[in-house]
Parts: sequence; C-alpha cells; structure tokens
Amino acid sequence: MERWKVGILIFEDVEVLDFAGPFEVLSRTRLVPGVESRRSDDSAPFHVFTVAATRDPVRATGGLVVLPRFAFDESPPIDLLVVPGGFGTRRLVADAGTLTWIRDTARRARRVTSVCTGSLLLASAGLLRGRRATTHGSALGELAAFDVGQVVRDQRVVDDVIVTSAGVAAGIDMALHVVETMFGRAVADETAAYLEYPRR
Amino acid sequence: MERWKVGILIFEDVEVLDFAGPFEVLSRTRLVPGVESRRSDDSAPFHVFTVAATRDPVRATGGLVVLPRFAFDESPPIDLLVVPGGFGTRRLVADAGTLTWIRDTARRARRVTSVCTGSLLLASAGLLRGRRATTHGSALGELAAFDVGQVVRDQRVVDDVIVTSAGVAAGIDMALHVVETMFGRAVADETAAYLEYPRR
Repeated sequence: MERWKVGILIFEDVEVLDFAGPFEVLSRTRLVPGVESRRSDDSAPFHVFTVAATRDPVRATGGLVVLPRFAFDESPPIDLLVVPGGFGTRRLVADAGTLTWIRDTARRARRVTSVCTGSLLLASAGLLRGRRATTHGSALGELAAFDVGQVVRDQRVVDDVIVTSAGVAAGIDMALHVVETMFGRAVADETAAYLEYPRR
Repeated sequence: MERWKVGILIFEDVEVLDFAGPFEVLSRTRLVPGVESRRSDDSAPFHVFTVAATRDPVRATGGLVVLPRFAFDESPPIDLLVVPGGFGTRRLVADAGTLTWIRDTARRARRVTSVCTGSLLLASAGLLRGRRATTHGSALGELAAFDVGQVVRDQRVVDDVIVTSAGVAAGIDMALHVVETMFGRAVADETAAYLEYPRR
C-alpha cells in the first residue's frame, strides 16, 4: 500500500488541539478495523509528521513543547498538508518564509487542508482565491479581509478543493472528512468510534 | 486568583489526543468569556504542564515528540493530576517508579483524573479500589482484572471522587466536567464553545 505523507505545520503559539486533533485522527486511521490493527502501521494509510521552519522546539499555546520532525528544507514531499491555527498565525500571515513554504508545498501536495485560523495562512498565501472557506467563529471577519471567494459560517468543514474547518475541535471533523473522501464512510466512522469521538 | 497546578503525565506511546485534549481544555479555560481573555493568563484558573519520568523527549503514539516540562523529581506540587492512556500504559502498569509517583502525587493532589486506559495505571496503583471507573471501550475487561469497585460502560465520564473517562476524545469531556464542577456550567460551556467542541 502506498502511504500518503501527511505534513502538519507547527509554529510558536499554534493551538494544541488544532494540530493534535488531525495528528491523532490521521495517525490512528486503519483500513482494517479494530484495536489490534492499531498496534502496527500495516494498514495505516497515512504517515504523519510535524514540520516547522527549523527543528528548534516549538512552544504551542499553553506551553506544550513539541519537537518538530522536520525543518522546512528537509521535509520529504508532502501529499496532504495540514495548516493548523492559533494566535501564532497572526505573526505568520506576514512571514514570507512561511508563506513561501506553504505555497510551494501546496503546489506539490495532493490535498491541502487547514484547521481554525490556519485558513488565514492559506488565504495570505493566495490559496483561497475564488474558493469557499471557513475558520474559527471569532475570525470570520479576519478571513474575509483576505482575497477569499466566500467565507462560510456555521459549517464545521468546507471542502472546495482546499479543505478548511471551523475552530479547534473541528479539525478532528476535517481529518475524518478527508479519511471519508479517500476511504469511505465506514473507515471514517470506525476511526471516529475508535477515538470515541462524537462525529456529527 | 489562586491558579491550580495541573500535571499531565506523559510517557512513551501515550495516545496524542488523550493528553492533548485535557491540555487544550484546561489551558484555554478562562473565567472571563470571549476571545480576548484567551490572549493572556489573567483569568486562567489552571496552570497546565506535562510531567514525565525524565526530561528526555517523549514519543507519543504516531511519532509526535513532546518535551516534558518537568521530570518526576522536579515537578511542583500538583493540584489536579491527569493520567492519559495509550498502548504505553501496558508497560507502565508494572513499572514501580511510575506507580509510586502516581500514588504519591494522587495523595497530595486535590483531584485525580484519567483518560482512556490511563485508568489502568490508576487501578494498578490501587487508587480505584472500591470506586466506579471506566476506560476505553476495548479495555473494559482489562480494567476489570484490577481491584476496581465497579467498571462502568457506556458513560463518557465517571466521577467517583476520582474522575475517569472513556476513550481518547472523552478526555475532552472529562476536562470540561472538571471545569464545570469547579466553576459552573456556564464556564464549561463557554470553553467548549470557544473550542467548537460538540459537548454532550
């Protein structure tokens, strides 16, 4: 089985659940149901890793410290890009290095996604031009200030080629949506059941 | 305001969402509602940190690497202990150092909680004797093999002095339950709304 490489961007003041939710869902998805299949990667369709500008420890919101797996310039090709949100995005919307990396990675990826205010970064990189997209309920106005086709409210996941999601926990739904579009409803629901997540 | 110290145990093969869910909820809880209050710790009732046997990097399930804030022997006194689960618990149920630390920390803590198979560690430490408790749906039998008052199924959070929860995502509910018992329904619901978590 070809395993998609999932690169999750992390940065200072990234919201913990924004990256941890999709990390959990995508790293625990198995094409073979049950608990036993989760003890190995044999039926895992994704290989999930974190990427940051450098390999320095990253301090997420609340003080959780994560060691990025790869720096921008050493990451393997990414099939599925996940851009999480958090207050740290407000600095990065004007950070040329990050936006260039996002743009270059998105161009080569098969699927581009964001969680929460991660969509501000996609928008700032010009990737939401003409597209429907969403973000955290408190940041809809901020998103609308960028060149975005249509800002959608009251929807947990918006899939318009690029997949964006509402705030924080909605990143779990976003990841389950990606699983469903790739492997069907049964695999997504079984993964949600394994995580005991109340999928909507 | 006195801020409760929340110590979240982490260890090799801890499940990502098991520790990240409560970390997110408890570190983002604010007694003042809204987005702005989350930009500082002024109305934060909890100070949340990770603790591990040593300060070596901890590899969670799926390969996420976290730097523990404190080693066992250097952690400040913990008011609220959170013991997450994951396959790594199966090694630790027989690890004297971990069980002793859990027992000593629990004795001094004001509140002891677990997520998922973290309850196996509490049970092995003798802390669930005579108590009602739960765990991941697939581990109810394992939990029953320990000296536990009653193993509860089909309940996301079980509060019998010690608070245990069902699998993975149920740790978010567990943390919101703790918030509710301490600060009331409005604070818990507002925090869930901020996280856009579909609280049940």
